[in-house]
Amino acid sequence: MIITAFLALCTPSLAAEQSNLHLMPAPEQLELRQGKLRINGNFSVTIAGNHDPRIISAISRMIQRVQQKTGIPFAPSTVIVPAPQEAVLQIHCGDKKETINHPTADESYQLEVTERGARLSTASPTGILRGLETFLQLIDLDKESFFIQAVKIEDRPRFRWRGLHIDVSRHWQPVDVILRNLDGMAAVKMNVFHWHLSDDQGFRVESRKFPKLQLKGSDGNFYTQAEVKMIVSYAYDRGIRVIPEFDMPGHTTALIVAYPELAGVPGPYQIERSWGVFDPCMDPSKESLYVFLNTFIGEMAALFPDPYFHTGGDEVNGKQWDASARIKAFKSRKKFKNNSDLQAYFNQRLQKILAAHGKKMIGWNEILHPALPKSVMVQSWQGQNSLIESARMGHDVILSRGYYLDHMRPASFHYGIDPGDIAGLTNEESARIIGGEACMWAEFVNPDNIESRIWPRTAAIAERLWSPQDVKDVRDMYRRLEYVSRELDALGLKHQDNHLAMIRRIAGNQSIIRLKQFADLLVPTGLGPRQRSRKYYSYTPLNRLVDAVFPESDTSRHLNDLVDDALIKKSYSSESSLLIREMLTGWIDHESLIEIKMLIEESFLLEEIKPLLEMVTELSQKGFEALRYLESQEKPPEAWQIESADLLTRSEKPIAEMLPAIAIPIKKLIEAANALPER
Amino acid sequence: MIITAFLALCTPSLAAEQSNLHLMPAPEQLELRQGKLRINGNFSVTIAGNHDPRIISAISRMIQRVQQKTGIPFAPSTVIVPAPQEAVLQIHCGDKKETINHPTADESYQLEVTERGARLSTASPTGILRGLETFLQLIDLDKESFFIQAVKIEDRPRFRWRGLHIDVSRHWQPVDVILRNLDGMAAVKMNVFHWHLSDDQGFRVESRKFPKLQLKGSDGNFYTQAEVKMIVSYAYDRGIRVIPEFDMPGHTTALIVAYPELAGVPGPYQIERSWGVFDPCMDPSKESLYVFLNTFIGEMAALFPDPYFHTGGDEVNGKQWDASARIKAFKSRKKFKNNSDLQAYFNQRLQKILAAHGKKMIGWNEILHPALPKSVMVQSWQGQNSLIESARMGHDVILSRGYYLDHMRPASFHYGIDPGDIAGLTNEESARIIGGEACMWAEFVNPDNIESRIWPRTAAIAERLWSPQDVKDVRDMYRRLEYVSRELDALGLKHQDNHLAMIRRIAGNQSIIRLKQFADLLVPTGLGPRQRSRKYYSYTPLNRLVDAVFPESDTSRHLNDLVDDALIKKSYSSESSLLIREMLTGWIDHESLIEIKMLIEESFLLEEIKPLLEMVTELSQKGFEALRYLESQEKPPEAWQIESADLLTRSEKPIAEMLPAIAIPIKKLIEAANALPER
Repeated sequence: MIITAFLALCTPSLAAEQSNLHLMPAPEQLELRQGKLRINGNFSVTIAGNHDPRIISAISRMIQRVQQKTGIPFAPSTVIVPAPQEAVLQIHCGDKKETINHPTADESYQLEVTERGARLSTASPTGILRGLETFLQLIDLDKESFFIQAVKIEDRPRFRWRGLHIDVSRHWQPVDVILRNLDGMAAVKMNVFHWHLSDDQGFRVESRKFPKLQLKGSDGNFYTQAEVKMIVSYAYDRGIRVIPEFDMPGHTTALIVAYPELAGVPGPYQIERSWGVFDPCMDPSKESLYVFLNTFIGEMAALFPDPYFHTGGDEVNGKQWDASARIKAFKSRKKFKNNSDLQAYFNQRLQKILAAHGKKMIGWNEILHPALPKSVMVQSWQGQNSLIESARMGHDVILSRGYYLDHMRPASFHYGIDPGDIAGLTNEESARIIGGEACMWAEFVNPDNIESRIWPRTAAIAERLWSPQDVKDVRDMYRRLEYVSRELDALGLKHQDNHLAMIRRIAGNQSIIRLKQFADLLVPTGLGPRQRSRKYYSYTPLNRLVDAVFPESDTSRHLNDLVDDALIKKSYSSESSLLIREMLTGWIDHESLIEIKMLIEESFLLEEIKPLLEMVTELSQKGFEALRYLESQEKPPEAWQIESADLLTRSEKPIAEMLPAIAIPIKKLIEAANALPER
Repeated sequence: MIITAFLALCTPSLAAEQSNLHLMPAPEQLELRQGKLRINGNFSVTIAGNHDPRIISAISRMIQRVQQKTGIPFAPSTVIVPAPQEAVLQIHCGDKKETINHPTADESYQLEVTERGARLSTASPTGILRGLETFLQLIDLDKESFFIQAVKIEDRPRFRWRGLHIDVSRHWQPVDVILRNLDGMAAVKMNVFHWHLSDDQGFRVESRKFPKLQLKGSDGNFYTQAEVKMIVSYAYDRGIRVIPEFDMPGHTTALIVAYPELAGVPGPYQIERSWGVFDPCMDPSKESLYVFLNTFIGEMAALFPDPYFHTGGDEVNGKQWDASARIKAFKSRKKFKNNSDLQAYFNQRLQKILAAHGKKMIGWNEILHPALPKSVMVQSWQGQNSLIESARMGHDVILSRGYYLDHMRPASFHYGIDPGDIAGLTNEESARIIGGEACMWAEFVNPDNIESRIWPRTAAIAERLWSPQDVKDVRDMYRRLEYVSRELDALGLKHQDNHLAMIRRIAGNQSIIRLKQFADLLVPTGLGPRQRSRKYYSYTPLNRLVDAVFPESDTSRHLNDLVDDALIKKSYSSESSLLIREMLTGWIDHESLIEIKMLIEESFLLEEIKPLLEMVTELSQKGFEALRYLESQEKPPEAWQIESADLLTRSEKPIAEMLPAIAIPIKKLIEAANALPER
């Protein structure tokens, strides 16, 4: 972002204004100007140039949102005035010809705001959608009215593929959940919804050619073709492409339940109810498989208009291939050295079928093979090696490693993963890295908690993929992320509401003020640790605190910032140190814990958190003592050092599949106290 | 409720359990039993007897709600098992023939819960709907699992007409708002949705016979006939009758805009944009009016299947009738002494038209007239006199006086209004009082705040109309109301979410923890004071704090309870007095007010509350001092007494159209201190 250079020239008051903007993703170039555009009952819009119907509907939605953000009622019909009339917001869309959602769509826009009005100009419709989100994010209020800071923005994305992948197979997600996530994606300028529609645990879309797929493979939870069309159209209206994924040849149990003859082993098969990598797999040696795939892909290609089509290809364990004499004979006939060669053969056939239906193939990085046609795009999830290798081998490639939302890492972690920060590639090879995708795998998410696992963290990934590489101040990212999270809530996303509803349920619908504060200190463990902690099935209730708490603890992060500041300044009696003390004593003072303890006593769902509450109290106590040592510059006695080391070790072991996130800043305090010189 | 008598026989632990139930409305008879029915993944239902499709869909919704209340996933298809199989919940619906939503529907049910299962038995389908709501309200959790307390309930409503009236004319309410309110009504067993569809400010339903009604009279905000049908069917599925109201002959400006020839004065007319009683009125002397009404009512009668049809009839100011020589001539020809006689003539004609279309007429109490046919039902809004008079004159009558939600009275006020508590009527006359309706007039509500004005207070009215007359413990009502309010939130109502969203908007989307606490001390003024405070129009933004704060202050009520307890016990250093001190000091301590003051500085929407914040600080300070005088039993000096009297007087004047609700308990403390004897 070129702001930084510009700020040197700014008057101090302008610099202060800049820090009040909440744009996310940050634009490529932003220049602050003097003055403010007032937003009031006279708000109006004109449209010049291209009148694509999607622009008109985007403007109607924008007007609704201006109304919602300000509480000023106005009817869209009176706000949109015919050009060349004067209007508060003038929209000029160029006639550059393109399909609005084409992968090479021009998403750039220019937005100029003065005291007298705003002007949004683009070469093509997609830019209008992006620019309107920026316009909405700029609305603020001051002592006089709602307003938009005078500003000049030139903006375009750094990567052209900025996706969110949602697995609807392991846990079913109804239509309204999908629509809300599309709203969230549009708000942070993401442009690809990657829809993981089939896996071992469910086949989730209606096929008219092969109705057994949904009848036998979905437990009744599937999208009708009408629903798919509605979702695709809803997404396209928001500048989001929809890429379906039908994972094959592995991860196909649900499909094989319906059509066991497609597998290498006769069966019978049942929908998988647990998590992991399973044996059922298509048999690439059967010609009938390709007949099936040709018809099936033909049907789905018509349903999903995007030129790309994802065919999975991950985690084929090969057990059924090794177990089948027929397949072994086929392999030796074809002179395949291993199952990887067999999968490559399958992928070559698959790619031809897709091409015949006008589709480009994408697959997970396991499909990489010297025989894979260069036109196939690769999605790298297992590490940077496959990213580099794909680019070198001539494939377009997107990054998902580091963007796995089910690992429950903080936004700052994902924010630090940059698909453009790859050493050792030529310019031509680098250019093949076209973006990335956040991935929401669904072992531990259901409609209650999926939004709190996706949002707001995905907004940080969206910024990484849109904004210039040098936009990477983590504290400023979090300042804006907290704001954006509230904006997403106002937009209708349920990451906050459902989180509260889940905690209320755990507490038997009692008042949860203190329990919520406690929950805000905790984080859930990620996929791996949860899998190891107990046996989970798709029907296991996800109604415990671990399922409800946010993936990252804002409270602990605030505490961590205060601790960092205190340690850097070596100042332990300043105002921020007072705040640290205040935050910690709240969890030591037994008076204030009574409400939580009463709830724990009354709820079987809370019983397991009792040791966590004790752990937080112990940690707070030790943190408090460490701060006292630091203040007095007196090295703690050896016994204290041993005790606190033991506590920190214990704090790293999950309790009730959660971790006390405040252990991280408290560890810093303890280690700083222990490092004090002997006096 | 017969509980009280029964409790004397209870073991103490059963009595304690009773106080943990959250049923609202309270059932007619409830007998606690030993033991608990466990609710877990094995939950199942059988249905015996009547298989009305509405029972099946009610059970499906109930299963979804059990899932939502417990977080245990199960598919309705596997939960409903065919009788006579064993099931956790056995439903037996008798074959008593009736239309499910007929005004005389039998709503009674018996629910018996033991450790082994629950049995819901009714004579007819409506009872099933009511009983399932009770079943859902009984779900709780303990140290072991979700459960339902063993219990035997025999329940039936005290009044058969328990309504909610919503005005969608003055401010438009979209379909989703209506549907959510129907969900809320069903949850508290209300059975009549009275839909105020036309008034001076808008005509809100599509007419195919007279399309100018919506084209000219609605600003584009109207329900299509398809939407009306969907809403009626949604309501009927939940045991709620839908009564349309087309207010006439007055309150008809929007209708007359479309068809000015129906008025007594030529016009032209415009949709009314302000609030009050206006002149435009139908001309009862024109035969063409009755031709219009016959066609219009015929169309609407087919759209709304309920036998009742509301024709308003309120607030006819008669100015147009007095101004028209034609009408005056008509009156003298007919020997009408006054406009009341003319309106009675209109109503007689109207009643005949309604009867011809199979409808019974209802109107507001102004229609009372000796000439009014006895079959017409009266809705009393102007006082008990009209209630008594209607019953004496032989009309069925419902009460709305005292149930006006726009007056911003606390739930306890409405709870104290009992339509059955009328002296001086014979039994036959009393029997004509068939219920009541909460009224949500819409001068100051829009989709953002309508739910917080209706809920949870309406649940208290629902209880008054359903439960036995002797259920009237106000504190216990509030204990359950707070719980039910959270349940309504979980059910999807937005009284809490939208309230928070509005406060967040006022605060420029900043963190609002402290501002929310402050807002919880305030209450909005009602319709009258707001009307007098400034000129309002239908397009005036309702985006200020007065529009967001809840109609009653739970915080102040809690404080009031503590103060009452302290004053009764004359104990000023007990734990409850400590709590009083703690609550008050939070508003004196300037440190903790910084967040609010910063927000006020930055928002034009908050500027007006600055004096309120000062007022709350002053009140808290004085309350704190009063408590000190009470503790020391030292009479406050005269100057303090004068000062505090002045403060209390000032606290009764609205600021920013709000009042500090905590003034009420603080006044009690001050008065008690002032009443201390001289020493």
